[in-house]
Amino acid sequence: MKKVVVIGGGTGNFVVLRGLKQYNLDLSAVVSMADDGGSTGILRDELGVLPPGDVRQCLVALSDSSRLMRSLMNYRFENGGLQGHSFGNLLLSALEKVTGSFEKAVEEAGKILSIKGKVIPVTTHQTRLKMILKNGKVLEGESQVYVSQEIEQGYSSIYLEPFAKADAHAIDEIMNADVVILGPGGLYTSLIPNLLVEGIPKALRDTQAKKVFVVNLMNKKGQTTHFKVSDHLRELQRFIGKDVFDHILINNGKPAEELIKLYADEGNLVENNLSNDGRVRSADLLDSDLTERQKGDVFPRNFIRHDAHKLAKELMHIVDNI
Amino acid sequence: MKKVVVIGGGTGNFVVLRGLKQYNLDLSAVVSMADDGGSTGILRDELGVLPPGDVRQCLVALSDSSRLMRSLMNYRFENGGLQGHSFGNLLLSALEKVTGSFEKAVEEAGKILSIKGKVIPVTTHQTRLKMILKNGKVLEGESQVYVSQEIEQGYSSIYLEPFAKADAHAIDEIMNADVVILGPGGLYTSLIPNLLVEGIPKALRDTQAKKVFVVNLMNKKGQTTHFKVSDHLRELQRFIGKDVFDHILINNGKPAEELIKLYADEGNLVENNLSNDGRVRSADLLDSDLTERQKGDVFPRNFIRHDAHKLAKELMHIVDNI
Repeated sequence: MKKVVVIGGGTGNFVVLRGLKQYNLDLSAVVSMADDGGSTGILRDELGVLPPGDVRQCLVALSDSSRLMRSLMNYRFENGGLQGHSFGNLLLSALEKVTGSFEKAVEEAGKILSIKGKVIPVTTHQTRLKMILKNGKVLEGESQVYVSQEIEQGYSSIYLEPFAKADAHAIDEIMNADVVILGPGGLYTSLIPNLLVEGIPKALRDTQAKKVFVVNLMNKKGQTTHFKVSDHLRELQRFIGKDVFDHILINNGKPAEELIKLYADEGNLVENNLSNDGRVRSADLLDSDLTERQKGDVFPRNFIRHDAHKLAKELMHIVDNI
Repeated sequence: MKKVVVIGGGTGNFVVLRGLKQYNLDLSAVVSMADDGGSTGILRDELGVLPPGDVRQCLVALSDSSRLMRSLMNYRFENGGLQGHSFGNLLLSALEKVTGSFEKAVEEAGKILSIKGKVIPVTTHQTRLKMILKNGKVLEGESQVYVSQEIEQGYSSIYLEPFAKADAHAIDEIMNADVVILGPGGLYTSLIPNLLVEGIPKALRDTQAKKVFVVNLMNKKGQTTHFKVSDHLRELQRFIGKDVFDHILINNGKPAEELIKLYADEGNLVENNLSNDGRVRSADLLDSDLTERQKGDVFPRNFIRHDAHKLAKELMHIVDNI
């Protein structure tokens, strides 16, 4: 059974894992621990726990339990002191308190959710993302980085504070993998926060695994505005220290003009300027099921997104050919 | 397999269920739904859910899952907006929201906890306990009744508001039981709140099951001060409409003088004035394991308590002889 490790955080990770879960793989998710927004931020501040949000999403993606259990994990309380907390975040935080360890908490939550595979926090140090912009502004925490529209004007540094060392299991997973997949995901909020953890770049350089970069569909306005594929790669290379990727997976499906217009305030499509690069594999990866739109979902960014099954199918071409 | 139904709420129920769980029985707990204190009260008020606290205790008592899962259910958050909430209460409330039904929530929580037996809310109506004292004071909610020290001066009425009808499953359980056990538990806070639910007294009068009353060890100061066994029975009879009990189980163990003194502010031992009543079975039911005391537990009421195994052994004598 091929060993596949997915590195990231947030929705991008969720889509890759949900897709790959259908195949017969030894699957692991190495998850960013920089989240500090919303329910996760409150739990970090009030309880001193490690951030559960991204881990929860990966656990749900890999869960073989009932639809009800998965809905329960993502259920958000709507009133009172619990308002905004997702139940899964509370489960992870309570398990961390009861077991005394976040890693153990993730393991136990994995059992409760009958997950297929493993979920591993990239670090178990309490750390925050910081970004200093060229204009002198300091973005404190992933949540501030997430909403900033000034990053494209340049930044002088991005780092974790305090300094965080990789969890030994995360390194082991990468070193023993057949395939490592990075992305899709927010460049500064889901991908780079993993690469800022000491030990991860070296592991990516040293591992014998084939490295796959899944390029985002859309740029994020004010952050990666008008980035082409080569710009995304260049940014990753800065933090990994080398262009390590053996495969670059890019969408070539075209969303309806109407959707691109709706999306204009969020960002623009990532242009593939590397079609002559032998590592590039392009395919239609778009989710064409827009039923949610009829349900009155107001976030246009949900409309242009990866289809878990199409993405997994393309990734499996790579996995099967090594 | 004999069908045994335990009616109550709170710690008393927990001890009976935990003890009986070791035997090969078809075991059900019918649980009071009048709790409105602490975490449960906040969840009722803020989320509009049914009270999870007593149900949670019964689920934990019947759980066959790991010690960790049981600790998790009883874990209470210590800070921030979550302060005081037990994780198990949050699980039941989130499940109620996701499934749309408290009964379904209890069933699903039972699966997660691998419970042996069934837990059934006595009613699924949102209702509160009210008590009007002879001195004109109105006690609103079980939490106010629980702390009152004026009940012994007399009360003119105790009722549920709004009026609550029994859950059909609760009636079925009682009607189909071989043995129904009432108590131990707070007379006005755990036992009578079940008897105020329409349908329960009639079911207790009509069922062919043998009815067992487990008498509390201690009276509660200001509530049942100096009640003898016959006084407890008389109060229950008022609400059931008949003296239905076939067996009355009473402790005859003597706690250390030192403990009785420690306990003096809480209440006094219940005196057995029915030793000539053929229905009475008396035995040493005291928990002699006082290790918690060394751990600095400050609640003397924990020191004089039923031993789950001794209690279950005596109850099984009754069950085995029908």
